[in-house]
Amino acid sequence: MSSFAVRTDLALEDRERIEGRGGEIHGVVLEEENREESGIRITRVRIETKNGARIMGKPLGTYITLEAPALTEQDEGYHREVSVELARLLREVMPDVKKERQVLVVGLGNREVTADSLGPHVADNLFVNRHVVMEFGPAAYNREEMHRISCIVPGVMARTGMESAEIVHGIVKETKPDFLIAVDALAARSTRRLNRTIQVSTSGIYPGSGVGNHRNALTKDSLGVPVIAIGVPTVVDAATIVGDALERMEKDSGLQIIGAREHPGAVSELNNMYVTSKDIDETIKRLSFTVSEGINLALNMEKLPSAGQT
Amino acid sequence: MSSFAVRTDLALEDRERIEGRGGEIHGVVLEEENREESGIRITRVRIETKNGARIMGKPLGTYITLEAPALTEQDEGYHREVSVELARLLREVMPDVKKERQVLVVGLGNREVTADSLGPHVADNLFVNRHVVMEFGPAAYNREEMHRISCIVPGVMARTGMESAEIVHGIVKETKPDFLIAVDALAARSTRRLNRTIQVSTSGIYPGSGVGNHRNALTKDSLGVPVIAIGVPTVVDAATIVGDALERMEKDSGLQIIGAREHPGAVSELNNMYVTSKDIDETIKRLSFTVSEGINLALNMEKLPSAGQT
Amino acid sequence: MSSFAVRTDLALEDRERIEGRGGEIHGVVLEEENREESGIRITRVRIETKNGARIMGKPLGTYITLEAPALTEQDEGYHREVSVELARLLREVMPDVKKERQVLVVGLGNREVTADSLGPHVADNLFVNRHVVMEFGPAAYNREEMHRISCIVPGVMARTGMESAEIVHGIVKETKPDFLIAVDALAARSTRRLNRTIQVSTSGIYPGSGVGNHRNALTKDSLGVPVIAIGVPTVVDAATIVGDALERMEKDSGLQIIGAREHPGAVSELNNMYVTSKDIDETIKRLSFTVSEGINLALNMEKLPSAGQT
Amino acid sequence: MSSFAVRTDLALEDRERIEGRGGEIHGVVLEEENREESGIRITRVRIETKNGARIMGKPLGTYITLEAPALTEQDEGYHREVSVELARLLREVMPDVKKERQVLVVGLGNREVTADSLGPHVADNLFVNRHVVMEFGPAAYNREEMHRISCIVPGVMARTGMESAEIVHGIVKETKPDFLIAVDALAARSTRRLNRTIQVSTSGIYPGSGVGNHRNALTKDSLGVPVIAIGVPTVVDAATIVGDALERMEKDSGLQIIGAREHPGAVSELNNMYVTSKDIDETIKRLSFTVSEGINLALNMEKLPSAGQT
Repeated sequence: MSSFAVRTDLALEDRERIEGRGGEIHGVVLEEENREESGIRITRVRIETKNGARIMGKPLGTYITLEAPALTEQDEGYHREVSVELARLLREVMPDVKKERQVLVVGLGNREVTADSLGPHVADNLFVNRHVVMEFGPAAYNREEMHRISCIVPGVMARTGMESAEIVHGIVKETKPDFLIAVDALAARSTRRLNRTIQVSTSGIYPGSGVGNHRNALTKDSLGVPVIAIGVPTVVDAATIVGDALERMEKDSGLQIIGAREHPGAVSELNNMYVTSKDIDETIKRLSFTVSEGINLALNMEKLPSAGQT
Repeated sequence: MSSFAVRTDLALEDRERIEGRGGEIHGVVLEEENREESGIRITRVRIETKNGARIMGKPLGTYITLEAPALTEQDEGYHREVSVELARLLREVMPDVKKERQVLVVGLGNREVTADSLGPHVADNLFVNRHVVMEFGPAAYNREEMHRISCIVPGVMARTGMESAEIVHGIVKETKPDFLIAVDALAARSTRRLNRTIQVSTSGIYPGSGVGNHRNALTKDSLGVPVIAIGVPTVVDAATIVGDALERMEKDSGLQIIGAREHPGAVSELNNMYVTSKDIDETIKRLSFTVSEGINLALNMEKLPSAGQT
Repeated sequence: MSSFAVRTDLALEDRERIEGRGGEIHGVVLEEENREESGIRITRVRIETKNGARIMGKPLGTYITLEAPALTEQDEGYHREVSVELARLLREVMPDVKKERQVLVVGLGNREVTADSLGPHVADNLFVNRHVVMEFGPAAYNREEMHRISCIVPGVMARTGMESAEIVHGIVKETKPDFLIAVDALAARSTRRLNRTIQVSTSGIYPGSGVGNHRNALTKDSLGVPVIAIGVPTVVDAATIVGDALERMEKDSGLQIIGAREHPGAVSELNNMYVTSKDIDETIKRLSFTVSEGINLALNMEKLPSAGQT
Repeated sequence: MSSFAVRTDLALEDRERIEGRGGEIHGVVLEEENREESGIRITRVRIETKNGARIMGKPLGTYITLEAPALTEQDEGYHREVSVELARLLREVMPDVKKERQVLVVGLGNREVTADSLGPHVADNLFVNRHVVMEFGPAAYNREEMHRISCIVPGVMARTGMESAEIVHGIVKETKPDFLIAVDALAARSTRRLNRTIQVSTSGIYPGSGVGNHRNALTKDSLGVPVIAIGVPTVVDAATIVGDALERMEKDSGLQIIGAREHPGAVSELNNMYVTSKDIDETIKRLSFTVSEGINLALNMEKLPSAGQT
């Protein structure tokens, strides 16, 4: 079977790829949920053992994927629905948020590179109140209790001369948040998932993930506080596209395409190329608003509307 | 032979595709020139007969391609060299520029969509003097003679409610330039040509060319004055990538990949996707500067340095 | 009485200045209306005779000023109210809008100069449909009748080499709109009016108005179709500020400040300086949204809510 | 004598104001130098005693002002000259820069508010190398020794929920630079100094300085390492303008303007207004480039050209 090395930041896609080769994976639990009205599908992949982590190529933790097919469309109501759904998933994994917490949101990525600018754009739309609540209390907002929310866009190393992780570590030590929410653009394996999938995970953010290169980990181990990662795939490596098309052709035709693996020249010129949607600039703006609204709702200490399906 | 419908705005690529199927094309003349020091290759494709136009799928005219492999790098000296080379090619096709002319430069495309923003960015860097020369003469610049240069970025139909062609037609009638230079982003067939190829052509700009959709022609027929088009390929249709990789595999392996044509599902999900380089945002800025410098040099009525190779 | 030459684009301020010197002006009619709930004040100045025009220093026509004190605040409901009020004023002066018309909106000014970027920003938020209605009819929007709306941002002469008026004239001849709406930033005399006043007028847009220098007239005379101008004062000339402060001091103190006129050195270094609010960047974004919403409502062929006061 | 409370961030202006009232100030030393060719004037104000600090209303330290009248013009050669002069002044106050140091440059201010965006823009143009030198040594740049330069734009509290000082403190603790260079926009008292004056000081950056509100100090006391501040005045408080014009009138006329102080109504509506130049957007871009070049030169460990006058 022709098989290219494919890169995905989505645990869901790792699971699919491995299952395609046959069956269950020890140490990896899968749950699916479908919202009938909205067509939103929620998949939880729990990597529970070291063996599972090794096979999946991802660290231990929970990876929740929200797939919303209509997310690429310009439907405000639908986007609101996705924001609420995202807020629910975030509350599921955020630690102790019944009590007032201090939360640092980190917008990773490069504002100057469209496909990598999700994090900075989410930061732009975020409700931030730490400075006000610290000075005047929740009363400043006519509330009795509030989380204190701060936000940083560390920028890229070529501009700062520092790892994102160094900047975030310094700020965490200085301001002592209870946990982090880190937002980043991801690479997917399938174009079907581009711009319509949101992954929430509890295992932190790791070197080399995302579109750009955000070296050094942001994890509970390195920072001392939990890190919840939110990612949206915005690109697919161009080489992956060719590999996947070949696999599908083999499957459809029942034949084997000899030599795909042996002829890397077929894809070598695709290095440093990626596939993205034609309306990526506008899509990023819309998606980042939806994600920031999801975070805003998750952190507002109010009751969320119950899920359509429940 | 598996063969996908591929789209390219480069006459050079049409010629290669057709030649690949065997030999010469009546009515299409090809000339090549190489600059040894800079590695720049200049190819002139002249479509001289209706038959040639039909086979090539492009209108009659001259299409000059400048391929500069190092154009993706950040080397100011090299970019300057390419600007001078582009200026020479432009002077080759601009009508009567020994005399003072009025020239309207049109920056086509969509400023909000990175891969389609070449034209607007070129406009930003352009030297514009029509208003000054009309009021004070070339003396305002301590010169004895000058072309008068104006520039318009018509914007996209979704924002203006008008075809780019309507806006340009109106301005041409009102301001009566002697000829137009229209700049646009193009689609190529091969990722090898992305961001390192500049095409200069004399046949105008046609519907549906470019990354976005700039409907209605800007041609000598429709406008009454010659139109010189400058294009740089910034994207490749994602489906093309798969087709090309398959072709190369077939060629390398000597086998035939059955069913590529019969299994369109393999590429259907690539609709509305394109392949582009990871650093497209920065690349567009650099390229647009190089192109605008080429236009500035071509229009300054001074002697250009002679070509390295000649 | 010390009196500096002050520049204002607001007919209302001309009227006040002249009245301050004593009484009525022949040929100039003034009407005032107050919306009690919203605190919005509407003033209509009609310059009906040449004498009136001479005294006022403004061409014949109707100048309606909408003063909305809370417009500088971030209150969405209030901004909506102002948009509706503006829509009403526009309908008052737009010709024959019971029938389907073609309307060209012109966003004057310089996108790169914050205080002069109102016009371009209004264009960004405008609902544009001419291209769709011309191809598919109002049915494309599930409507039976619709105005066809197009929009142009001509840009500044330093970038285009053309007068805004040349560009607009060309487009008017080519696309034949029934009337124009031109939007521009204005200069006021009093900082009290900055960013909270909208002027609608029927006399076109004239040379040298606005913050930048948009030469050559856009008027019914020059274009052949009516021109409705919408302006918002965003700056005050710095020299005006000093003059006004002196006048107020004289008035308050009952004394005369000798020599203000004789000592122009006091204000000469203020040339090319203007006074603006500290939050001008954000204010322009908010105001331009309110103005574009006003235009969108005015042109949607639906019934507007009736005025609060009536 | 009528006298308004005026605010300036320039020690030079404090000195002038106080001297205007008569003579020398104990504990404050003044030195002037003039570059004849370029017309650049360098003034050193040294506040050496607590008494001097109290009278000046500024902390102990050295304040060097570079006044370059032609800095508002678009003359590349002149800007280069100013960059070299700034580099010399920086070397004068930077500690121990004969040895390799680690330097953190901080771009204070608000990128979204033109007049307050100097710091972020300087950061954009800065040469940053810490990450490269730490990994590959100076050899990566074909050099034997290099300072390691990093850079942060902390952003504004409304967006981050944190004081700039908190962010900078955290990063300083984490990355341990030898000293800081902090860049910020300033307020001047006189429009004559806008955009043509650069102040270098050794006393750190203090609360409420600058156009926006950057609370909490960045000083050697609070951070543990020296802080060199670079500031450029980009605005004048509008009320100051009126006060200054009155003072000049009194001086010119020999009369006293009664009641200026008693009639604060004359200037009260100028609250939250500032005076700035009409081309502020473009000016900030040009100035920030000149300042960043000055820092780049100061930190390149090469010999600077000697001063024109010396």
